This record gives sequence, C-alpha cells and structure tokens, in this order.
Amino acid sequence: METIKTKAYGAKATLIDRLSSLSRMDIERKAPKADEVLIDILYCGVCHSDLHQVKNDWGNTIYPCVPGHEVVGRVVQVGSGVTKFSVGDIVGVGCIVDSCGKCRSCVEGEEQYCEGPVSWTATYNGYIKPNGTGYNTFGGYSTTLVVKESFVLRIPDKLDIKAAAPILCAGITTYSPLRHWNTKPGDKVGVVGMGGLGHMAVKLAKAMGAQISVITHTEDKRAAAEAMGAHEVILSTDKETMKAHELTFNLILSTIPDPYNINPYVKMLKRDGALVVVGVLGPFKGPTNNMEVALHRRSIAGSVIGGIRETQEVLDFCAEHSILPDVELIPIQDINKAFDRMLDNDVRFRYVIDMQSLKDEE
Amino acid sequence: METIKTKAYGAKATLIDRLSSLSRMDIERKAPKADEVLIDILYCGVCHSDLHQVKNDWGNTIYPCVPGHEVVGRVVQVGSGVTKFSVGDIVGVGCIVDSCGKCRSCVEGEEQYCEGPVSWTATYNGYIKPNGTGYNTFGGYSTTLVVKESFVLRIPDKLDIKAAAPILCAGITTYSPLRHWNTKPGDKVGVVGMGGLGHMAVKLAKAMGAQISVITHTEDKRAAAEAMGAHEVILSTDKETMKAHELTFNLILSTIPDPYNINPYVKMLKRDGALVVVGVLGPFKGPTNNMEVALHRRSIAGSVIGGIRETQEVLDFCAEHSILPDVELIPIQDINKAFDRMLDNDVRFRYVIDMQSLKDEE
Repeated sequence: METIKTKAYGAKATLIDRLSSLSRMDIERKAPKADEVLIDILYCGVCHSDLHQVKNDWGNTIYPCVPGHEVVGRVVQVGSGVTKFSVGDIVGVGCIVDSCGKCRSCVEGEEQYCEGPVSWTATYNGYIKPNGTGYNTFGGYSTTLVVKESFVLRIPDKLDIKAAAPILCAGITTYSPLRHWNTKPGDKVGVVGMGGLGHMAVKLAKAMGAQISVITHTEDKRAAAEAMGAHEVILSTDKETMKAHELTFNLILSTIPDPYNINPYVKMLKRDGALVVVGVLGPFKGPTNNMEVALHRRSIAGSVIGGIRETQEVLDFCAEHSILPDVELIPIQDINKAFDRMLDNDVRFRYVIDMQSLKDEE
Repeated sequence: METIKTKAYGAKATLIDRLSSLSRMDIERKAPKADEVLIDILYCGVCHSDLHQVKNDWGNTIYPCVPGHEVVGRVVQVGSGVTKFSVGDIVGVGCIVDSCGKCRSCVEGEEQYCEGPVSWTATYNGYIKPNGTGYNTFGGYSTTLVVKESFVLRIPDKLDIKAAAPILCAGITTYSPLRHWNTKPGDKVGVVGMGGLGHMAVKLAKAMGAQISVITHTEDKRAAAEAMGAHEVILSTDKETMKAHELTFNLILSTIPDPYNINPYVKMLKRDGALVVVGVLGPFKGPTNNMEVALHRRSIAGSVIGGIRETQEVLDFCAEHSILPDVELIPIQDINKAFDRMLDNDVRFRYVIDMQSLKDEE
C-alpha cells in the first residue's frame, strides 16, 4: 500500500522531569482509503495534554509518541467515497479520529463518550486495545494527517487559520460543558485557571451572555482576563474574597490541569450549582466534603472535549461571535522551550506551531 | 407566659462510645402562639441522625439534646390565627420547624436549602446562631411539640399512623432526590445501603417505575430487598459483579451514613448519570478520581431532606401507592438498646417509639 513520508516531532521514550527531548523523526501515513482525506498540516496547537502524554502522566503512553490534536490544514487528496470535502478545503482535526459508531453515545453524536470496547480513537496515542494490541496513532506535530472525513471539521472562512487550531481542543472542552450545563444570559460563571482552556472559557461564556469571574492564584493575568470580558478576577489565595463569593455561582468551570483541593470552590456554588472539572483527569487532592455538596444540592461533575457535531458548532460559534484564541506562533524547533514555558505557566495563552517550519527542515 | 410540662428523653451531655445514657428529663414547651399548633405526640421515628447528633459527630450539638424529627401526633390546641388545622387532626412534623421565609430557596418552597443568616431551624438542636446565641429546640422524643402551622404536615387517612413517622425524614430524604434527578419508568436506579433510608428509597423508586438494584455489603437483607421490589441485590464486596454493572445506572442513591470510598460507585453510572449521596454529611474516604467522573460526564451530588411542600407530596404519594416504612415499635425505655442495635446495623428497618410508653411514666 502506498505510504506518505511525513516529517514529525515526537518523544522516542519516556521523558523525565524537565523536557528537552522532543526530537525530529520521520513517520509514514497510509494513503487515504475511500472515506478518508489527506491533510497538509498548516498549524497545530500545543495543548497541556501533549505534555501529560509525552511525560506518561496517565501511564498509557506508547512510544514513540507524536503529539498534537489541534490541527488546521488543507485537504490535498480525497478518497473515492469522500463527499463532504474537496481538495483545497481548509479543515480541522481535533482530539478524535474514530469511534465505534454503534454505542448510545456515538449514535447520539457524543463520540467523546464512546462506550465501545476500546472507546474512541485519539488523534495521537490512539487505538490501543485493553490487551495492548491495536496500533498507535501519530498526531499533528507533523506535516500530514490522514483522517476519516466524518471526523474532519470545516474551518469557517471568517476564522483566522493561524489562530483557530486551539478551538479544536481548548475551545470545545470549555464550550461543551457551558452548553451542557445550560449557560444563559445573566448566569454567574466562574472560570478557575486562566490558561489555554480558561481564556477560551471566558470568551465563550461571555458570548453566551454570562457574567464571568476568573478565579486564579496570581495577579498576572488580571488585565488579560478583564480585556477578554471577565467581570472580575478573584484571587484564590484571598480567603476573604473567596468567602464573599460563597453561594453565588451557577457554574464553575475548573481548568487547572493538576490535582488540587476542590472544597473551596464547591462552597462558591449556588443551590443546584455545578463545579465542572475539565482539567484534572485523575484524583483530586484530598476528599470532597459532602456536607458542602449536600447542603445546597450542589454537584461536582466532569466533562471531556466534545463530539464532532458540537466541535463544528463551536467553530461556527467562534466565527459568528468573532472569537479567536490568543496564540503565540512558534516554529516547531522551539517546541521543547515551549513545553518548559508551559510548565512555568508562562504562555499567553496557547502556543501554535507554524508547520512551515517543519516543512522547511531537511 | 403559659408553659406546657412535657416528658422527654434526651442526652444531658456528650455521650462517649457505646450509648447507655439517653435518660428521662422534663422539659417545657411554650404555649402555642397565634400561628402555632400544640401536638400530642403519638409516635416518633428513630433516625440515624439522632445518633450522630447526640454523639456530637458534627461538632454542633447543644446539650441537653432531645432528638426526634419523625413525629406523628394529634393536634390538641391551635393558635388564634391557625387556618389549616383543627383540634383532632392527625399531623406530622419532620426535620424543619422554621426558616427565614425570604431567601430564594424559601420562596421556592425548598426551605431545606434556606440561605438565611442561620439557615433553617431544625426540629431539635435548632436555631443556634453562628455566634452561639439563639435557643435550642427539643425534638420528638417527648410527649408534646409546638410548631408553626406552616411547618406541620397532614398525615393522609390511608396511612397507618403507627408506621408513617419515618416518611417524614427517611422518606423525604430519598423521595426528593429521586424526583429532582427525574426518576422515570425504566430508569436503572442503584440504592447503596439498605437501612432506614435505603428501604424507603427502594419502595419509592419502585413506585416511580424504576428498576432497582440494592448495593449492600452483606447478604443479610437480600430477601427483604427483593420482597420490597428490588430487581437484584449486588454485594459491594463482589468485585466481578460490581464490574459487570459499570456504566449501567442512571442514578445511584447512596444512603450509607459513614465515610467510604465513592469511586467504585462512580464507575457504575451511565453517561450523564449521578451519584447522589444523602447519607454522609462530611468528607468521603479518600479523593474522588475525576478521570471516572469526566470520562462519561458523570456527576457526584448530594441532597438533604426536602421542603415542606415536597414532604406533604411524599406523604400523599405513600398513601396513593400504599407505601409504608417497615418499622419496629419500641417503648421509649428501650431507646438506648435501640441505639446500640442501630450501631450494630441490626434494624428492620426503622424503630418507631410508641409515645404512650413515655406518657405512662411517672
């Protein structure tokens, strides 16, 4: 079968501590089947998950690992049965490239909650069966990608393609819970953490008419948060202000990527309010105090990315409301430095790799 | 002001370890004001909370403490402004005897989530202000009670008054979340713990058309659970069966009164399912693993009792569906033995004190 030589950056083995070793590798893509498209990658966002995955924080990384699930590119070849896309189209690929298609969630267009035997296939580090068989997938830190057309998104013309990529993960990860928990004009929404996800949550909730409070541990991002539409910035270290906000939020969306104590945030919810945690995919720090949860019938919930239909919806929503992620374009040669700066919480607010830099490499 | 001499059983001081010292005391009730009724107590249920409270498990007990918030009695005197009740009526009093009446929750008839400065007033150990002032309330382990008519419930004629009392706490505590989380015919509902609350949850959910699985740690209550309408009994110690039930429940209502690890129950929820904990009012054992929560957009929530409107609703629902708690009538002189047996998990399924036994004391 024909293969397509593809340049990539990836981790060859587990990375210890500070990262200095995402390195150039050459991979091959299989030529597109009847229902697939071949994409020339133009831009790829750098997500905190990429860091978790290459560091094997979730214990499931298969090496070599080529990260990248915020892909914007151009269709350069289509399979014989492809109907939705043509050569030249500007398209996006997010976190999911396949799913069982048969379970309740897939049938309902919520592929991110696929209940099939191997769940959904991730754009990278994907399709590993529980018994360890299957095959690895390589993500968007590369020059080409081949994906089933049903998992490919259309990038609206109005969106600047240099900045759109993070909508495909940071955008949908915050949009989906805002919609699911029915955010409406006048709602008080708290956004915990002001990084790649947090800054998108602010912009999206603002466009939905919510009144937004950013809850963060430093003053560093106050001006940026306010400029994006936050009504106020609350320092999580300021116990008095935290207390003054008890019983006030309809929804708190927490984007902090590392374990922490959720109890102070629970107290800030109104009766029937929900704390939805999209950042931490593992145990919290310490037990939840159910006294606070039960006394006002609050909920603690979680959510992951979104389905294909809803990912198209957030792209269209961003185009309609002129929302774009705040990005810093980098050449792929700077990726290790970018990971280091991400660990230092020093990103405003998402790195996007300009893939021309990789194409220009030998 | 006229007072009403009342016989009672209560704890005079903090009780250590095994209980042997709820003892007879004499208290006084103030004569009913214009909007109050005087109730001659006929029966009072024995709730696990009574035990928590006299043991000062929540650190807020004021001694002397007269427990009892599942009261059934007869109106023997009414204030001049009382319109809902007449002398002779058979009535009930649950956990709440007053609330601010002004906050959002009170206005919406959810007094159990009162957001007033001192929250709602509990039937016993109630109305203690944050600064320690206010006054204590004495509950239903006594011969009389004086309560505002707006917090008094009507016991439907169809209900056996000897058995109805536990509906006022065990019943409403399980009915309210079943309704709030919209239990409907065909739903799979898990009930964790098969005590006073759990057995009412089974009967109520059954009447709502749900398919019920009781999750318990012993075989002891299998026959009783099945007789009450449970479709199956799952032993929480049987890891294989627990695993086979992953991703199957719309709602799991957990009634276990002591801290435990909730993670195995989270995994049993379907996508968008909720684990609602009504038993533990404090920290769980160990941190929640948000990976399990987020991966299927599950929720962990809590709920406390119910408002006055909904408590009347569950009484009427029980009458309509011929539901009664399974009770064991005891004389009040056996209360310490009953507490001991409750600690040993040896109740089928709720003790109810026949208050004639107290009236007959000198």
